[in-house]
Amino acid sequence: MVDEPDAGLLSLNTATVRKQWPLPQIIDGCVRHDIRGISPWRDQVAAAGLKESAQRIRDSGLTVTGYCRGGMFPAIDREARRAAHDDNRRAIDEALTLGAPCLVLVVGGLPQDRDGVIRSKDLAGAREMVRDGIGDLLEYARGAGMPLAIEPLHPMYAADRACVNTMAHANDLCDELGAGLGIAVDVYHVWWDPNLKREIERAAGSTPSRLLAYHICDWLVPTTDLLTDRGMMGDGVIDLKLIRSWMDACDYRGFHEVEIFSANNWWKRDPDEVLAVCRVRHQECS
Amino acid sequence: MVDEPDAGLLSLNTATVRKQWPLPQIIDGCVRHDIRGISPWRDQVAAAGLKESAQRIRDSGLTVTGYCRGGMFPAIDREARRAAHDDNRRAIDEALTLGAPCLVLVVGGLPQDRDGVIRSKDLAGAREMVRDGIGDLLEYARGAGMPLAIEPLHPMYAADRACVNTMAHANDLCDELGAGLGIAVDVYHVWWDPNLKREIERAAGSTPSRLLAYHICDWLVPTTDLLTDRGMMGDGVIDLKLIRSWMDACDYRGFHEVEIFSANNWWKRDPDEVLAVCRVRHQECS
Repeated sequence: MVDEPDAGLLSLNTATVRKQWPLPQIIDGCVRHDIRGISPWRDQVAAAGLKESAQRIRDSGLTVTGYCRGGMFPAIDREARRAAHDDNRRAIDEALTLGAPCLVLVVGGLPQDRDGVIRSKDLAGAREMVRDGIGDLLEYARGAGMPLAIEPLHPMYAADRACVNTMAHANDLCDELGAGLGIAVDVYHVWWDPNLKREIERAAGSTPSRLLAYHICDWLVPTTDLLTDRGMMGDGVIDLKLIRSWMDACDYRGFHEVEIFSANNWWKRDPDEVLAVCRVRHQECS
Repeated sequence: MVDEPDAGLLSLNTATVRKQWPLPQIIDGCVRHDIRGISPWRDQVAAAGLKESAQRIRDSGLTVTGYCRGGMFPAIDREARRAAHDDNRRAIDEALTLGAPCLVLVVGGLPQDRDGVIRSKDLAGAREMVRDGIGDLLEYARGAGMPLAIEPLHPMYAADRACVNTMAHANDLCDELGAGLGIAVDVYHVWWDPNLKREIERAAGSTPSRLLAYHICDWLVPTTDLLTDRGMMGDGVIDLKLIRSWMDACDYRGFHEVEIFSANNWWKRDPDEVLAVCRVRHQECS
């Protein structure tokens, strides 16, 4: 097996304790538990104030490992797509203020109307909207010097969250759209893919490497909810050490970002306990 | 868009009403609703008697469109794999008695112990067990003249039900293992796949065609349970007419088998209503 990971590479995606703590408390919690990376979400940054959050993260000595999130490109009418574009530009500006290394993109699924109701079954068309939307946003992102990281989501989210569901598809988009675009590899979404190793290597073979972020958690059996039943590393069936060994072999030297949505378990626990367990499990199980 | 499907091609996978009716009543229900195909499950056949079921289906003039199911190849010890092999041979014998055109294979996920607990995270190893298990079974299946149909399951079942999760993987196995092996295309499992059209064409390009079965239902948004929240055709987001047009274009002339697991909706309704709705939705929405 591979060696234990460098404990200094642990990062906390703030979704992991977002039900218990607002962002300032999460930042303080990271410091208390010697977690040196953080990846905040837009809603929590907005609630705490953008400049205040950036300052507090800097003062705490934390490294921002990503900003969650932009995307949601498909929409049923042009005006809504334009609004998404404008919002994504603001997300890039915020990511710059926070000193994030990339803006994570959850690209969106089938086109919805303004009430969030899916109004089209045209999956190929949605994928074209995603390609066009990323292409448009890239112009602004390149000018700002902010890399965009496509996060392929599990196929069970193809309809309503992201219609890019494999590393291969994300790599294809990077091939087509060029510089400034990379990939956030989240084991929860891609662990099942028989082509995972090959596509990680493909992403790393580009210059610069497309491997912009690495997210960890675990897949529980049974999984009782499609959205909020992710597991802590070691509690599920993903061979996390194996996948990390592939990232390591591809010279990925970035953080390992824990991102756990868990309505019935980790979101109900004392967040100090959650962070302590994250530290231990990162070392022992990932 | 494509024409309405031939109503005579509708088949009922008996899982769709298995909570309400035993097999003899399902057979009678198909006749009553002029549904001309049926795909029974082993447990219901066992409960009603194999020979009696075969006779009743024949007497009713129904066409068997598949037999559910064999597979579950990975196991933690050799003895359990041997037991699965023996059970799969019996399933082939039963399929012959029933006059089924194929035995559907749900190949199994990560290796479990005898209590059904997953004991390994070696997904690649599980996939090798699947390949070897199908290879062994094929010898018997070829001798018996019973085609085996790999059903790729949605990636959300990779851990516990089937680690063959794409048409491409199923086609690769067919390439490797040769004659007597084909594919059951279930839209629920593969609708999200950006390579679906290409891989249907690849399956059809073999001689004989690998397209042994076509299962329909719909993907609901939201989906509230990973196992038992499938939708009736037209209630979800799958472009069923588009996928059928791909099957049609590949000269698939087999049945369209409705298979709906639905704990909170269709399994709670009057089964005569369910079959009536299946007929209408098959015509209008698939």
